[in-house]
Amino acid sequence: MRIRIPATSANLGPGFDSLGLAISLYNYVTIKPYMCQSISIKGEGSNKPKLKVNNIFVSIFKETYKKLVSTKETFRFEFENNIPFSRGLGSSSAVIVGAIASAYHMANVKISKETILNLALSYENHPDNITPAVYGGFTTSIVVDNVVKTLKKELPTSIKAVIVIPNSPMYTAYSRTQLPKFYHMKDVIFNSSRVGLMSAAFFSENWELLKHASYDKIHENRRMKKMKELFTVREVALKNGALMSTLSGSGSSFFSLVYEKDAQNLKNILEKKFPSFKIGIFCFDNFGFNIIQS
Amino acid sequence: MRIRIPATSANLGPGFDSLGLAISLYNYVTIKPYMCQSISIKGEGSNKPKLKVNNIFVSIFKETYKKLVSTKETFRFEFENNIPFSRGLGSSSAVIVGAIASAYHMANVKISKETILNLALSYENHPDNITPAVYGGFTTSIVVDNVVKTLKKELPTSIKAVIVIPNSPMYTAYSRTQLPKFYHMKDVIFNSSRVGLMSAAFFSENWELLKHASYDKIHENRRMKKMKELFTVREVALKNGALMSTLSGSGSSFFSLVYEKDAQNLKNILEKKFPSFKIGIFCFDNFGFNIIQS
Repeated sequence: MRIRIPATSANLGPGFDSLGLAISLYNYVTIKPYMCQSISIKGEGSNKPKLKVNNIFVSIFKETYKKLVSTKETFRFEFENNIPFSRGLGSSSAVIVGAIASAYHMANVKISKETILNLALSYENHPDNITPAVYGGFTTSIVVDNVVKTLKKELPTSIKAVIVIPNSPMYTAYSRTQLPKFYHMKDVIFNSSRVGLMSAAFFSENWELLKHASYDKIHENRRMKKMKELFTVREVALKNGALMSTLSGSGSSFFSLVYEKDAQNLKNILEKKFPSFKIGIFCFDNFGFNIIQS
Repeated sequence: MRIRIPATSANLGPGFDSLGLAISLYNYVTIKPYMCQSISIKGEGSNKPKLKVNNIFVSIFKETYKKLVSTKETFRFEFENNIPFSRGLGSSSAVIVGAIASAYHMANVKISKETILNLALSYENHPDNITPAVYGGFTTSIVVDNVVKTLKKELPTSIKAVIVIPNSPMYTAYSRTQLPKFYHMKDVIFNSSRVGLMSAAFFSENWELLKHASYDKIHENRRMKKMKELFTVREVALKNGALMSTLSGSGSSFFSLVYEKDAQNLKNILEKKFPSFKIGIFCFDNFGFNIIQS
């Protein structure tokens, strides 16, 4: 079998742990029965030998497969990784979702996308990346008793993502555990009202409102302080056609949403300003993970 | 001229200061030039003589009119008030919006609904009630530099509002100034993610998700503690067909959204359980204030 899983950008400003969308940047994994366990890696991670020994995809795959099939079988896994690691583009979610879906497929056990999503939640306890990795599109999600409740909106081809990928990850010490525990009511209202308007803007395709709806007072600036160039990335993007420009997940990548016609120009300007960062234009993915070969 | 302005229910659970919707329960005001200032009141407030002397509608009307017309004129105001006072159904917003719109109309100065909304914001600095009073429907709003940014969704006739109106207001000392100033991150995420899902549910008419999306951890239970029967109202409503059941504004009314087919049954059950409360079934208003006679 061969599966592809999209990259995702989560939070999208105010939508901490709830909003996300899928991007047409894919990891591919080919899996086949093999005489012994075997792993090959192309792309991201190909230079990390320990990934051939301690591979999370393989661990989750085996753990899941074991629950479905009583016989002991071994597989060869061929990874083509295009989603960069530790850059806030959902590489972990892609691994989790891809491993679960693949294990069910190889075990020949039918499973719904909804069930895959809820199994994925046991490996990553916030739904903002795993949900678009499963369904594609823009998703707005909550968790109720360990079950994800979500709504998805397919995104049209008239808008594109321009993604800035810095050459280093954000310092992991500045993850969510370093954020304040308590927030002032005015910041709570600031964020929650923007999550509402942003969801409505995506669902009604009212892109012009994204600029107003995409600000955050909870996490984004606090995280960006560890890589100050990102403030300039946001400023430059918003001045040059970005309808919104937000830290992708917990960083270090930066996500901008633009009309198709403005994408190339924004990419050119960002490339000139940040020659050491990788910058790409991507379509949105509206399908989520997909088993492209049985 | 004759204007009608709808009642509104705001907050809708997690959507503190941002979400609201308009209900087909209207105040009517008839205004005509008259030899002296004259006020008559039918319905709500008709038993309060001081409303003929100190009337907020008339104050805002005169203040607005004076800015538009240099000549001094006097009017007769005939109020037919159906929106109860101090019950969280937007009676203040109806007064503010109605007074501004009427003053412009009587001064024969064209004005957009958008401008009326932003003028109303100077009298009520949160947009959750004034926005649906102006536009009707379900609205999700933020304020940016004293300007309301909002999106509206018209509501279909297949859903109805069942509103419980207690016979007393909530104690005013328990208004927003009595709520905590700071909130834990997990409650912030709980609420903001639900605002996102609720907005998406309204925009995509996915009513079944409202039950999950309509919970709040910021204000609702804290306010309801001052009128404990409201916990039973919510419980009974959710057990008997309500798709969501939330404190209306800051109370004391309780708003439930139901499929049309379930409305009468829910009303009957609530009436039996709460014989001293007023209970009504209402359509949603999709138009907002309306000058029904020039």
